Amino acid sequence: MRMVDIIEKKRNGEALTTEEIRFFVNGYTDGSIPDYQVSSLMMAIYFQDMNDRERADLTMAMVESGDQIDLSGIEGIKVDKHSTGGVGDTTTLSLAAMVAAVGVPVAKMSGRGLGHTGGTIDKLESIEGFHVEISNEQFIKQVNDIKTAVIGQSGNLTPADKKLYALRDVTGTVASIPLIASSIMSKKIAAGADAIVLDVKTGDGAFMKSLEDAQNLAHAMVQIGNSVGRKTMAIISDMSQPLGFAIGNALEVKEAIDTLKGEGPQDLMELCYTLGSQMVVLGGKASTLEEARKLLEEVVANGAALEVFKKFVVAQGGDASVVDNPDLLPQAKYTCEVPAKSSGYVEKIEADDVGVAAMLLGAGRATKESTIDLAVGLVLHKKVGDQVQEGESLVTIHANSEDVTEVMNKLYEHIVISKEKVEAPLLIKAVIKE
Amino acid sequence: MRMVDIIEKKRNGEALTTEEIRFFVNGYTDGSIPDYQVSSLMMAIYFQDMNDRERADLTMAMVESGDQIDLSGIEGIKVDKHSTGGVGDTTTLSLAAMVAAVGVPVAKMSGRGLGHTGGTIDKLESIEGFHVEISNEQFIKQVNDIKTAVIGQSGNLTPADKKLYALRDVTGTVASIPLIASSIMSKKIAAGADAIVLDVKTGDGAFMKSLEDAQNLAHAMVQIGNSVGRKTMAIISDMSQPLGFAIGNALEVKEAIDTLKGEGPQDLMELCYTLGSQMVVLGGKASTLEEARKLLEEVVANGAALEVFKKFVVAQGGDASVVDNPDLLPQAKYTCEVPAKSSGYVEKIEADDVGVAAMLLGAGRATKESTIDLAVGLVLHKKVGDQVQEGESLVTIHANSEDVTEVMNKLYEHIVISKEKVEAPLLIKAVIKE
Repeated sequence: MRMVDIIEKKRNGEALTTEEIRFFVNGYTDGSIPDYQVSSLMMAIYFQDMNDRERADLTMAMVESGDQIDLSGIEGIKVDKHSTGGVGDTTTLSLAAMVAAVGVPVAKMSGRGLGHTGGTIDKLESIEGFHVEISNEQFIKQVNDIKTAVIGQSGNLTPADKKLYALRDVTGTVASIPLIASSIMSKKIAAGADAIVLDVKTGDGAFMKSLEDAQNLAHAMVQIGNSVGRKTMAIISDMSQPLGFAIGNALEVKEAIDTLKGEGPQDLMELCYTLGSQMVVLGGKASTLEEARKLLEEVVANGAALEVFKKFVVAQGGDASVVDNPDLLPQAKYTCEVPAKSSGYVEKIEADDVGVAAMLLGAGRATKESTIDLAVGLVLHKKVGDQVQEGESLVTIHANSEDVTEVMNKLYEHIVISKEKVEAPLLIKAVIKE
Repeated sequence: MRMVDIIEKKRNGEALTTEEIRFFVNGYTDGSIPDYQVSSLMMAIYFQDMNDRERADLTMAMVESGDQIDLSGIEGIKVDKHSTGGVGDTTTLSLAAMVAAVGVPVAKMSGRGLGHTGGTIDKLESIEGFHVEISNEQFIKQVNDIKTAVIGQSGNLTPADKKLYALRDVTGTVASIPLIASSIMSKKIAAGADAIVLDVKTGDGAFMKSLEDAQNLAHAMVQIGNSVGRKTMAIISDMSQPLGFAIGNALEVKEAIDTLKGEGPQDLMELCYTLGSQMVVLGGKASTLEEARKLLEEVVANGAALEVFKKFVVAQGGDASVVDNPDLLPQAKYTCEVPAKSSGYVEKIEADDVGVAAMLLGAGRATKESTIDLAVGLVLHKKVGDQVQEGESLVTIHANSEDVTEVMNKLYEHIVISKEKVEAPLLIKAVIKE
């Protein structure tokens, strides 16, 4: 088998065989196939796409390129959730505790990542003492005991994906549905979940700007998951404006706690119930979405979800008193309001640029080496469609430096107020099961 | 300027600026841009093409990546000819002497190359003593004296093209019109000619199998040449069957000498007159093609072309007595006829496979390290459209090994005889001036 023949075959629009896909994934992982042939193939895939069978083969070849987490020691159907990422997405923290409280085990492997704010682990580390460096045995025991745990990425998971992603990043081949879908799904599958609920974001603040692209990606991932024996479904959710109110690490932890108390922002609560219902059904704890939702609403109302969160924090070394007293979380030195310059209706809160504003404050990482300021960030007071009076605060800036002019200008530029009445965007745009 | 942005721009179908093209060509040549980014860009170009301005920019960036030959010491308009390569293409040897005899200087830099038979230099080295290792001064003096000389490739010509070609060869990005056209034209332009006549082959034995592809390539090269100030035109000629009768190095030299005597195969003579007329007009020695052709026919008829060839051989150290006595050329030990198995008309002589048969005898190089047997090869006795009687020889095999079963089987397989009358293919399929 010669790599150049595989490249030309794909370039000519033909489907690669399972053996050809394994050949290049294994060859690239072990270094016998050079970068320059793989990047050329990635570009050919960008243009010629892959069929469903090829996508599943690529995913499994990447899964099999490294370690696979064995979650068989955990009782029940392990359901994982994955979000394609957005601004102010605090879902994971609340959702895991809610679903766990209903009895579905949530064994989460998480990362730090780059972006406007930190990853799930960064956010959790806002809680004093909290850590994710736990052993696999402790991880599994904890999930069996309290139904949820978060562990940092460890082991040699999907090395082929890591190598391919790094190459795609510098060769203009990131934005390809089969490559994105197989990359995400290979990580989820290697992490051992039995079932996977995907939250594919769409809009200005998402990687997939258009609904069509988001749907294509969702279909691709659902197709891969189901064809390799992991029950998978996806919802498409709005990311034209930030999710919830908080954008920042400690600020989002506080918001997650509010959500577990039933007092979170309406959109965040709704997204948690929607995703959670799917997880509870896939986890076999309810037979209909309505039933599942009722269970989730109950564990929020009766405090069981909050209780699971507290136990989870304690189990991983954190100070659970932040749950009752969120002021114990890191606090920024300065706060500053951003008053509306005119009265009307909020027409746009451009998620991507608002995220950049949070990053300017220090809430996120631009490079792997950047350090994160866990205390800083933004708290929105208005969402798209809300009425606003001139002088009323649109956002509170939480900063550790006094001069926030740049951030404030950015916010004014990207929060648009209209004289006309504006409809709030639909949060859940589609549910994709095949 | 970042290479990844250039890749994405081309991937999205946009035209690259002159600066962007220079940036990646220079960066690749000096090693600051890695193979894996360039191969990805090459694949993007394969799919998204380049406009006329981009193609000219790419060509000139490759020309400027290395040395350029200065032919200003040669009087007159220097006209070069380039063939995209085929089977049994003996044109260069006869054509250079014919055109030179009319007074147009032909200063040729030539290579050995891979293929069914050797390159021009290999063929000329069939003549005892002939060599191409001459100094630039001698080269220029010889062209001024006798209007023609052949020099081996020397200096650091188009290093960017060499590096890009080697990369394209292993990354499935050879078959791209803008990349092929700029590669060929960069070498011709760096070699210093004022005007260029291109012979683009089409058919089974050519790189461009279809007439449409050949026309696209011809248009692309003519466009590049003229836009950078070198008068360029192309003809499209048939390569569905081998050109002339001889396929093999010494055998082709003999055929070239026959052609200069006016006794060559009809198609080879016609191609020499067609290409030669264009060269003579571009070289300013005639104002119409008819006038140019008349001059060429004269120098063949009166022996002046043959005389130039003799002087050329002597000037480069060769034994000119081969011209009058071609038996002095290397001779194979064995000859073997291939008799027709049935009567009828020759329907096909599949050029590519007949070329492979010659290569099996040892006439060509499969890799750079292969050695060539200058004596061996094939001499056809029939061409497509010719009538043939059962038992009549179709081909004479010239071999240095006794067992030619494989070669003979290949020839029987790829020379097809039909009961029906067959039309000879049109030799000159198009003339392309813009």
